[in-house]
Formats: sequence, structure tokens, C-alpha cells
Amino acid sequence: MAHPSIILINPQMGENIGGAARAMLNCGLDDLNIVNPRDGWPNERADAMSSGALEKMPPVGVYSNTAEAIADCHYVYATTARPRDMVKPVFTAEEATNDMAARIANGQKCAVLFGGERAGLDNDDVARAHAIITIPLNPDFTSLNLAQAVLLVSYEFSKHIDSLRPQNIDVEPASAEDMNNLFLRLENALDEKGFFHNKHRQSATMRNIKNMISRAELTDQEVRTYHGIISMLIKNDS
Amino acid sequence: MAHPSIILINPQMGENIGGAARAMLNCGLDDLNIVNPRDGWPNERADAMSSGALEKMPPVGVYSNTAEAIADCHYVYATTARPRDMVKPVFTAEEATNDMAARIANGQKCAVLFGGERAGLDNDDVARAHAIITIPLNPDFTSLNLAQAVLLVSYEFSKHIDSLRPQNIDVEPASAEDMNNLFLRLENALDEKGFFHNKHRQSATMRNIKNMISRAELTDQEVRTYHGIISMLIKNDS
Repeated sequence: MAHPSIILINPQMGENIGGAARAMLNCGLDDLNIVNPRDGWPNERADAMSSGALEKMPPVGVYSNTAEAIADCHYVYATTARPRDMVKPVFTAEEATNDMAARIANGQKCAVLFGGERAGLDNDDVARAHAIITIPLNPDFTSLNLAQAVLLVSYEFSKHIDSLRPQNIDVEPASAEDMNNLFLRLENALDEKGFFHNKHRQSATMRNIKNMISRAELTDQEVRTYHGIISMLIKNDS
Repeated sequence: MAHPSIILINPQMGENIGGAARAMLNCGLDDLNIVNPRDGWPNERADAMSSGALEKMPPVGVYSNTAEAIADCHYVYATTARPRDMVKPVFTAEEATNDMAARIANGQKCAVLFGGERAGLDNDDVARAHAIITIPLNPDFTSLNLAQAVLLVSYEFSKHIDSLRPQNIDVEPASAEDMNNLFLRLENALDEKGFFHNKHRQSATMRNIKNMISRAELTDQEVRTYHGIISMLIKNDS
């Protein structure tokens, strides 16, 4: 699957461009573009903060204005911290990446715009976008930095990348027969040691013990471990 | 709703502790705890990187070992980058925070453990936890930093905090009558200017135009703007 372009408009600190690149590549995205970076490009601080991401990615696209940067895009999302008086769909990062994944599957090229550190996107750039992404944050503390905002959007998009979907770990659960053998072994051992002094409670007590042990959904290996524990515990001290 | 405790075990750089605090408070979490911080506590670099978050939060809990830090917790999640040979539920951050929100709603105290920058959590700390959180990342580039990992878990949890749920913006859509008046106005204006040279195609052409305009789901104000545009366009040059 193709990925969205991430476009940083007027970014100031190279550290944040590098941090954004690192966050993107962590999440499997590698189409980074910058418009009018304050300190020029390339940027040593960006390289250092990217932890190698900028070297592994295709070259960053550098543009002098937003129109050029989005020229070949079909659908553009603007990230904003505060609402703007513009009538556009407003998405959370999760909703936006659902929408984006569907558009990309249909062959559209999508881009996400992020504004500079000081003031975010200006209204002209927001107006160019088809939709707005607002990340709901604690209203008393909203200082999300640029690289973190890029991380959250990239992370939400990564949920749509098949190769990044979590795999179930492959654990072989113990069979019912193995569990039954374990319980018989334990019951015999307890019985021999005189555990069931109240004989008519034996089956109820064992039911509780079985419940307690099976709730852990033991593996084969763990059943063997249990057998080992029982073997050790019943040994008579010599 | 109560929030999970975030517990950083053996964190090395103050910058990362401060960055974690900032990420947490962005997402409405404020219960930060550290075990055995390399450079002691308090830490000036942590204060600087927290952008004020550490001042706004309750005091950070400082412990000398993990057992003390989690003593009053009912359910503990360990974050790990790589799978461990331990039989525990393995969650994504999203699944884990769904589980966590349900437990917290039932009165359980939950904690999330994050290991130090160099090596992550050691196996003893993972063994203490009830479940594992693994954030699926690009297998070719997995250098997520500590504050970013804290951000992703805090961000997923924030989706369960009612006060941070996104609000729909309140936009008054134009009524059908307003839209109909606009279309009549436009059709008349076009007709007067001779737009419909092919008279038997007039209704089909208008249907296409109506489709094109209504798809934007105009507001009252935008309908007035359209009227203004038409008024200007039909003016005869003097």
C-alpha cells in the first residue's frame, strides 16, 4: 500500500525535522517533504536527531511553497491544534487515517500538512486542505511538539499497514488430556499426604483447585513444570 | 475516571523523563513514577524538557525498586519492543488501553512499566507484569524513544477520557428550501445569459450542477456567499 506524504510547512528547528523523520520511519512511512525550512536543507541537527532515519528514507522533498508541495495530491489534511472558522470535515487522527487508507486504496495520493513550531499552519494553508485533523488533547496542557504530532498521525496510519499488524504469538496450549493427567497426579499426591481430611469435601476442593490452575491457560511446557514441582514437593526428606 | 500510573524503570536521561511527563500531561495523565533514575531526582534537564508539565503534575513518585513502585497496583502492563518467552497476554497499545479502561472502571489500579533507554525492561520486571504491551513498529527501524513510547500509550488511553473526546463542531447546514432558491436563482441567471443553448438538455445540465454544489453540504452563510457571487457575475460592465 502507498503511504501518505508528510509535509512540514515552515519548520524551524532541524531537531524537529529529524524527530519527525524518525517517528515516521518507526511507523513505516518514508515520504517526508518540507516547505521553506528556516535553517535550509540539508541540516546537520536534523540528521543527528533522525537516528539514521533520514539516511534510510528516500531524499526529503524540499519546496518553496505549499502549492508546489501538494501539486500532485488528491486529498490533503491540515493538522491544527485549535478549531478554525472553516467548514471542512474535522477528524481525529484515527478517523483521518481510516479515511486516508480508504482513499489510498482507491489510488488517491494523500498528504498531511503540519505547521511550524511557533504558530502552526496559517489560514491559507488550512484553506487549501480538504479536511482538518485535530488531536484532542488536555485543554489545560496542549504543548504537543511537531515530531510528536507527526508520530501520532504516522502511528495511526501504521495500523493500516498490513506488514505492521501485530501477529499473535504462537503458543501451544496444553491439551485437556494433559490437564486431566496433571489434576489426577496432584489429587493422588495430595491424598497420599493426607490433604483431604474431610473426605466428602474432596471433589469440591479439587474442583476449586482445577479452576484456579486452568484459569491460567497453561502451555505444554508449563504442565511439565507443574509435574516437576509436584515431584519435588512429595519427595521425602532423606 | 482514574488514570493508569506510568512507571519508568531505571531511566537514564532527564530529558526523556521530562519528555514523558509532557507527553502524559498532553493526554490528560499525571501519575508519573520513576524507579532508580540514573541521575537522581529532581533533575534540571527533566524540568526543562517537560515544558512545565512537571510543575503542573502532582509530585513524581520515586522508588528504589519495581516491587515498591507497583505495590498498590492490581494490574500491571510491561512495554517491550521485542517478544519475550513468557506466557502472558500480548496487547497492542490500543488493546491494552481498552483493557485498562475497563479495569479502572471496575476500581482496579493499573500501571504501565517502561524500561530504561538502553535495554528496556529486564526479564524480572516483565515477569512481574500481568500483560505485555508491544507497539508494532517498522521491523527495519524500531528506535522509538522512551518519551515517544509513553506518548503512544498515553494517547491511546486518552481516547477513554470523556473530557478529551472530540466534540462535533456545530455548523448549521443550509435548508433544502435555501438550496432550492439558490438553484432557481442560478438557473435563471444562466438562462438569461444564454447558457442553455441546448434547451432540451437544460434539466440534465441543472441536475449535474445541483449535484456538484450540494455535495459540499453548504452552510447558510455559504449559500449567501454563493448569492453574492452570482450577483457580481451577472452585473453588466458599465
